[in-house]
Amino acid sequence: MSATIIDGTAIGNRIKQEIAAQTARLASEGKRVHLTAVIVGSTPAAEVYANRQGEACRAVGIDYTLQTLPDDISQRQLRDEIRKLNKDKSVTGIMLHAPVPPHIDLARMQFEIDVTKDVEGVNPANIGYVVYGHTLIAPCTAGAVVELIHSTGIDLYGKEAVIVGASEIAGKPIALLLLGEGATPTLCHIGTRDLISHTRRADILVVAVGKPGLIGAAHVRAGAIVIDVGINRVKQPDGTSKTVGDVQFDAVQPIASHLTPVPGGVGPMTVAMLLKNTLRAAEIVLGK
Amino acid sequence: MSATIIDGTAIGNRIKQEIAAQTARLASEGKRVHLTAVIVGSTPAAEVYANRQGEACRAVGIDYTLQTLPDDISQRQLRDEIRKLNKDKSVTGIMLHAPVPPHIDLARMQFEIDVTKDVEGVNPANIGYVVYGHTLIAPCTAGAVVELIHSTGIDLYGKEAVIVGASEIAGKPIALLLLGEGATPTLCHIGTRDLISHTRRADILVVAVGKPGLIGAAHVRAGAIVIDVGINRVKQPDGTSKTVGDVQFDAVQPIASHLTPVPGGVGPMTVAMLLKNTLRAAEIVLGK
Repeated sequence: MSATIIDGTAIGNRIKQEIAAQTARLASEGKRVHLTAVIVGSTPAAEVYANRQGEACRAVGIDYTLQTLPDDISQRQLRDEIRKLNKDKSVTGIMLHAPVPPHIDLARMQFEIDVTKDVEGVNPANIGYVVYGHTLIAPCTAGAVVELIHSTGIDLYGKEAVIVGASEIAGKPIALLLLGEGATPTLCHIGTRDLISHTRRADILVVAVGKPGLIGAAHVRAGAIVIDVGINRVKQPDGTSKTVGDVQFDAVQPIASHLTPVPGGVGPMTVAMLLKNTLRAAEIVLGK
Repeated sequence: MSATIIDGTAIGNRIKQEIAAQTARLASEGKRVHLTAVIVGSTPAAEVYANRQGEACRAVGIDYTLQTLPDDISQRQLRDEIRKLNKDKSVTGIMLHAPVPPHIDLARMQFEIDVTKDVEGVNPANIGYVVYGHTLIAPCTAGAVVELIHSTGIDLYGKEAVIVGASEIAGKPIALLLLGEGATPTLCHIGTRDLISHTRRADILVVAVGKPGLIGAAHVRAGAIVIDVGINRVKQPDGTSKTVGDVQFDAVQPIASHLTPVPGGVGPMTVAMLLKNTLRAAEIVLGK
């Protein structure tokens, strides 16, 4: 047996096509989907990332504005900028690029973003709505993982879901979303006593740690669905760099029933989910 | 071996004494802790509950106002009442009694309560802050469970925590708070495939289902800490009623290392946590 490879790029492209169609429908009614991204203290890397994001938006018909603010902006000034965007009826989605300079409290600023415009799903209230089981907008990575699992056709009800890595934007919301579909989630992390005893009982294993090759063959139950959220740049013996996940792909492929590759799994789906969240936010905002 | 009984009444009383001392300190600086509870469409049962709450507040020096609103109040009017309380500087804490009439969206109204005055920790943003690991105000029951576990002196780091029952105000925030202390949480519920396989590996077993006697001896690992959140009224053979938990107390006592009774465990601690949250909210609000 060899795992079916879950093609995140293909699934992401299908979602993007649906978004493009819906965005075009809204545009024909004179309704524009418009994401404004805020960068505080720009760096070349942030610019490159933001530009790619802008291209991804425009490719599906979403207007994209990048607002770059000086790195010495005060927290109060940044708050006022966000509040301005909250009130601006032409802006349907807002995201604040991380990292921000050390004098800015990121969580405090995320709380300022209107919950209905919060395309990254990072406002604590949106996280709270995930807990409450009536998700408004879920964090992009968590949404991506759920979509990839859905693509296998599995019914999550009653399944054992083990999530390795308990971060705020990945592991925790992933566990809550899978719980919402009836799975029994276990959240493992660096302090977990016997990791392998958990991962081996997983029907669905999601790994979001950022440690290359953390999960090998011995960690995986036969027939499990394995979603690899890790994106790690590693140096190879010949000096070149390569992107790998947290899962030993070649070792796990003979055991799992479904497996995401890195790159080409969660990564492209996360971009698609940002666009989907942006559309969803716009539908809420414009529907008001 | 026989489990140590965790005395929620005694622990709750100790916490209440600390609250009374701190409330008196604030009062000596002219700062009043003032909880306003809102009931929509009063019933005799709600009145009894609210009156007890008022007594508990006054016993520790907290001012208590009960605001009863007609059961045909519109959602907009109720929202405006909450907003008035948010702005009222003499009110340091707000709670909205559940249940509310069917035409009122409870979650929507909870979202209106200022996060810093939300003494029940039910605003989705406060739930979100629990997920983010920088809890402002945690739901009372969840906070009570964590305090009771702390009273045993156990270090939660690396421990297996199994929570049975995945409700919004108990199971889910309990799992997140225990995760925040380094435990590895598993959240079980009605759809869990093999409940006993989970409960048997728990170092800490928290049961919050509302099903009398759900957990018996076979479910419990030797030496586990067992916290029983269930409060069930059951008819006895002689026709009288009795309050029991979700755990078969007599069966589990010889196996567990620590065990909460029902009544006298989580119940009185939940009241103490409401008072603690009320004080905490006041300290935040008055410190502004």
